[in-house]
Amino acid sequence: MLVSALITSLGINFGLCVLFFTLYSILRKQPFYYDVYIPRLLVEGTSKRRSHFNLERLIPSPGWVRKAWKLSEEELLSLSGLDAVVYMRIITFSLKVFLVAGIIGIFVILPVNCTGDQLEDIDFADFSNNSLDVFTISNISSGSKRLWVHFSAVYVVTISIWYLLYYEYKYISSKRIAYFYSSKPQPHQFTIVVRSIPVSVGSSISDSIETFFKEYHPSTYLSHTVVRRTNKLRGLINDAKKIYKRIVRLQGNSTEHKYGRAGCFGLFGHKVDLVDHYEKKLENIEENVRLEQSELSLAGDEIPAAFVSFKTRYGAATAFHLQQSINPTRWVTEQAPEPHDVYWPFFTSTFFRRWISKLVVIVACILLTILFLLPVIFVQGLTNLSQLEVWLPFLESILTITFVSEVVTGYLPSLILQLFLKAVPPIMELLSSIQGYVSHSDIEKSACNKVLWFTIWNIFFATVFSGSVLYQLSLILDPKNIPARLAVAVPAQASFFIAYVVTSGWTSTSSELFRLIPLIGSLITKPCKSNTDDELVVPTIPFHRDIPRLSFFGLLGITYFFLAPLILPFLLVYFCLAYIIYRNQFINVYEPKFETAGKFWPIVHNSMIFSLVLMHCIAVGIFTLKKVSLASTLIFPLPILTLLFNEYCRKRFLPIFTAYSAESLIKKDREDQNDTAMDEFFDKLVTAYQDPALMPIQFPTNNDSLHSPLISSAEV
Amino acid sequence: MLVSALITSLGINFGLCVLFFTLYSILRKQPFYYDVYIPRLLVEGTSKRRSHFNLERLIPSPGWVRKAWKLSEEELLSLSGLDAVVYMRIITFSLKVFLVAGIIGIFVILPVNCTGDQLEDIDFADFSNNSLDVFTISNISSGSKRLWVHFSAVYVVTISIWYLLYYEYKYISSKRIAYFYSSKPQPHQFTIVVRSIPVSVGSSISDSIETFFKEYHPSTYLSHTVVRRTNKLRGLINDAKKIYKRIVRLQGNSTEHKYGRAGCFGLFGHKVDLVDHYEKKLENIEENVRLEQSELSLAGDEIPAAFVSFKTRYGAATAFHLQQSINPTRWVTEQAPEPHDVYWPFFTSTFFRRWISKLVVIVACILLTILFLLPVIFVQGLTNLSQLEVWLPFLESILTITFVSEVVTGYLPSLILQLFLKAVPPIMELLSSIQGYVSHSDIEKSACNKVLWFTIWNIFFATVFSGSVLYQLSLILDPKNIPARLAVAVPAQASFFIAYVVTSGWTSTSSELFRLIPLIGSLITKPCKSNTDDELVVPTIPFHRDIPRLSFFGLLGITYFFLAPLILPFLLVYFCLAYIIYRNQFINVYEPKFETAGKFWPIVHNSMIFSLVLMHCIAVGIFTLKKVSLASTLIFPLPILTLLFNEYCRKRFLPIFTAYSAESLIKKDREDQNDTAMDEFFDKLVTAYQDPALMPIQFPTNNDSLHSPLISSAEV
Repeated sequence: MLVSALITSLGINFGLCVLFFTLYSILRKQPFYYDVYIPRLLVEGTSKRRSHFNLERLIPSPGWVRKAWKLSEEELLSLSGLDAVVYMRIITFSLKVFLVAGIIGIFVILPVNCTGDQLEDIDFADFSNNSLDVFTISNISSGSKRLWVHFSAVYVVTISIWYLLYYEYKYISSKRIAYFYSSKPQPHQFTIVVRSIPVSVGSSISDSIETFFKEYHPSTYLSHTVVRRTNKLRGLINDAKKIYKRIVRLQGNSTEHKYGRAGCFGLFGHKVDLVDHYEKKLENIEENVRLEQSELSLAGDEIPAAFVSFKTRYGAATAFHLQQSINPTRWVTEQAPEPHDVYWPFFTSTFFRRWISKLVVIVACILLTILFLLPVIFVQGLTNLSQLEVWLPFLESILTITFVSEVVTGYLPSLILQLFLKAVPPIMELLSSIQGYVSHSDIEKSACNKVLWFTIWNIFFATVFSGSVLYQLSLILDPKNIPARLAVAVPAQASFFIAYVVTSGWTSTSSELFRLIPLIGSLITKPCKSNTDDELVVPTIPFHRDIPRLSFFGLLGITYFFLAPLILPFLLVYFCLAYIIYRNQFINVYEPKFETAGKFWPIVHNSMIFSLVLMHCIAVGIFTLKKVSLASTLIFPLPILTLLFNEYCRKRFLPIFTAYSAESLIKKDREDQNDTAMDEFFDKLVTAYQDPALMPIQFPTNNDSLHSPLISSAEV
Repeated sequence: MLVSALITSLGINFGLCVLFFTLYSILRKQPFYYDVYIPRLLVEGTSKRRSHFNLERLIPSPGWVRKAWKLSEEELLSLSGLDAVVYMRIITFSLKVFLVAGIIGIFVILPVNCTGDQLEDIDFADFSNNSLDVFTISNISSGSKRLWVHFSAVYVVTISIWYLLYYEYKYISSKRIAYFYSSKPQPHQFTIVVRSIPVSVGSSISDSIETFFKEYHPSTYLSHTVVRRTNKLRGLINDAKKIYKRIVRLQGNSTEHKYGRAGCFGLFGHKVDLVDHYEKKLENIEENVRLEQSELSLAGDEIPAAFVSFKTRYGAATAFHLQQSINPTRWVTEQAPEPHDVYWPFFTSTFFRRWISKLVVIVACILLTILFLLPVIFVQGLTNLSQLEVWLPFLESILTITFVSEVVTGYLPSLILQLFLKAVPPIMELLSSIQGYVSHSDIEKSACNKVLWFTIWNIFFATVFSGSVLYQLSLILDPKNIPARLAVAVPAQASFFIAYVVTSGWTSTSSELFRLIPLIGSLITKPCKSNTDDELVVPTIPFHRDIPRLSFFGLLGITYFFLAPLILPFLLVYFCLAYIIYRNQFINVYEPKFETAGKFWPIVHNSMIFSLVLMHCIAVGIFTLKKVSLASTLIFPLPILTLLFNEYCRKRFLPIFTAYSAESLIKKDREDQNDTAMDEFFDKLVTAYQDPALMPIQFPTNNDSLHSPLISSAEV
């Protein structure tokens, strides 16, 4: 790729970013778009839709940048929880890493590369016609003493990343513990999930649980909630809610409403009939729901799984940590999630089925990874124009236009890849959800891992090897030659990844700000909706989409910083953008759905360790290829030390992220002992883990005009 | 190798076995050898040395075989504990496996192999000149339909091994639980080891422990014993004991003694002076010991590690399972070993030093494994006579003699290997002991694992690959080609391993019966010893030497059963011998030193799973090589299913072997609640984990004539 192609790509993306920023700065002030840009504030009621018009609203103002910048960590913590803080720490951590790497890369390695003599000299006169390779390590001739500069850079950056990782892990651990200490009593702290409950003939699951825990945990056992199979009921309730919404909309059409714009197209003629028709239907369904609920409450369809609550956190922890039954596959315990975080459909599977579905999911992930190689091959074809001309000869004439060919090689490949990648996080989330996790947060964590490794494999490795050895992917089974292969293939893709950072990174972040897809969605559906804010669902940040992305850019930066330091400024810009934009989004858009208290950090830590080891592998390969064998030998201690460092962190910090210590649990329990509010809390705890499907249907109550038969009947 | 070479080897070893059996049957009845052959009975006092002579003593009698045969599992359990039972179950398990494999191998596969047409036909006229390869799969021509017989055999044997493994794991688990239920209260059930205890300035370690456990385990905490650095003291005490023995021996020389034979050579002249001299020296040392002890008891040299005892088993288990401190590297807990099983020198290392020493041990093991390849190469040279003649040309004339060449190719290689291998278990035990384990049993378990993998690697893989690709050992890093390489190399070594089973297996087992080395040791040292049985140390069975050997023969049998079924009868004989001989040794010789309650079984289980997967790899390679690609494809599910089976067993049974469940702990605790003997037990528990070095020196008290100043002073 030539410098000019990069500049084209840069230009397009910079333009896009400016456009998105400007549009955002204007649109966010229009009440019509409040539900897209500040749904959180809207629902919380801190921002009301103002309908009066003034000119100021049409001028883009950067006030939101200042606000986002000024937000302190404590404010963020109280606003969006520890997970958001950790998310922002991932960004600041990356900024720190690439500041160090960037200073070394730009001021030391880049000049060394540019003045190398392997390729032709830089043509300053016609700068944009230089190949990007001039800025990479490819420009250093074999055996050159200059490679020791790269060698030292690898050491310096590795050591500083160790320091930063250690410091960060320590900081987040302490935050996690502090968060626990400052937390109010919460149901999930006192509760465990028990599965695979054995039932003797003649007694119910509930009896079985009662007997077991009263026998073995008499002093701490409080209560339990058996899980019931409610799939059918959930279906009915969803139907009821849909019909209710339809009725509200129909009724809304006949009355005055505040903001003008309304009405779904057509259907106005037989409006009254429809309302009657739907109300009858709703009553029918509600009747069914009530029947089903009372049937379920009596005995039927219990699942051998339950939420068991204890009087102390320590009691719950004890039951969770010790193997309860002689048979380790019975009375399997797990930490309970927060009540609203429970993923209810999971409970239908038994120990064995869960195990099998886990295996199926693993196989599905592997298949998906393999199938995904097809678009990657296609994308790679685009970077080789000559190959594309062979494939699609009719394009030859168009491709000779410079601008078109620059767009095609510089911008199109990563855009296509980008579009395909959009589909991956939802698919992975779906796969994780059938794996038998108890909670949304676990599903998201597992999906996060899946997406991360998928990205690393399918973007990094597939891209790196497709140009040269994709057709021999099986040869990767040859571990001895990996460094040598990486050394040949990785630098060759430097320009692609620089472009990738600019297109995928910059554009995706600014479209995150602009919320392109929700905006389009809102524009399409708005005419059909009655305009009440209560229907508005505040989105949650999809960690399983965004954390792998951040980590992957981290991986790109670490592996390329000494090969092609030109990537670093673009990365720094990316992380700066992300810093401001995500802070803004946490304030205005996203609301936390659950709180894992920082459990996402270990995933990022692992990916960093992997990046480091990969970078060392590449370094070994490069130095061998460039015939500085002493340097490649001296690199060897680095991956070993990195893995040892990781091992130490696993011992020192990881246990903090899996469970709380006896010390902190008991301290918290003691604090509560004298608290009079605890009785009330325990009363609530008993019913905290009721399946929402078994509770009376709760329709939004703002619309008083509607007759709501179910609420009244539930009160009877 | 020719059939005749095998027959020679068979002859030698059969002769050796008969010789050992006969000699044993005679010598075991001679009182002079009681300390070699029935030390256990001697110490227990069930057998007294009878000095009267009768003719019967000189006639070999097989009574011991009947006695060993009749021993029931319950008797063995009460005699030698659960570990011995598990050890015998390993042998009966192997017998079952190879009975199934043997029937299929001998009656189905062997005829199929023999009637193959790849090599020349069997020459029944001159049977002993047939190559052993005629009996192996090498005799089947490529693409032959007969290979489907082997294919079916692989399936049948794999499935039956799954069944047997499952059944065995289940049986041993149930035995382990039953053992726990029937056990009396034991100190280690109520105790945990705590390490890395943080100490605040101004307070002692003891205070720190007291504060911590009274704070967080007020209801169950009982007492603690801080570990002290007693290396110096142990040295002094050992000196004292040595001198004491010397005095006893000197005094013994001057008095009458019962069994005649006595006296060390020389030194008789200044006997009285010597006794005086040594008694003074002893008094000196005892004075030092007492000083050191009182110094230690006061404050000095405490190590931040302690045995903490609880009032209930459940309390101890809770403290063990939960992470105690916020910092996971502080207050690290571990299950306590039995008091006499504690390995005291371990405590000198901190968390970080233990971690480092573990790494050092791993590196040492790898180095040892690599260095050990040298003798293996040499041994492999011997099986290639022509190569040996090239190396050592002067041997050419001798090697032409048929018998010599048969001994050299058939017997010598495995004998040499055998001798080198003798050194491995002690070295591995030494390595394990510096790894920071708390107890002898842990050290032995870890050594057992090390020896097993060492054996598999250095005997199986090194032998298999040395003939063809030892010089390219690094090529094993090429996983894709492993099956193909194995398929070429493994069958080629069939004859070596058949000979190995006969020489190493048969001879080592019968020399285990004959106790060759202890016998020689006893013959050398006896003239110097005064002849009291109290000095006699009853040996313990070295599990870390014998379990890997049994497992390795299991691996050989499983990998070779369809390649060279001729190995199976020899293996069956081996396991039958082992069955009788080890039962006899458990009755007469070995005494249990510790009780892990079956924790050795998972090691054997893992090695079986590894053998199965290895066998499947070889089968895939063989079927590919023989151009039956459908069969090699159809084998693929087997290793996957084997690994899944293993995964299931890990979930279903392994937790039982790491810790007891809450259910069983609480049941046992309840049983004890009404037991009046418990108060006494708790009194003892407080001092159970005293370092023996801190207790008054206990000299054997049988010799009343000797003035023992320390015992009296300790009573003051």
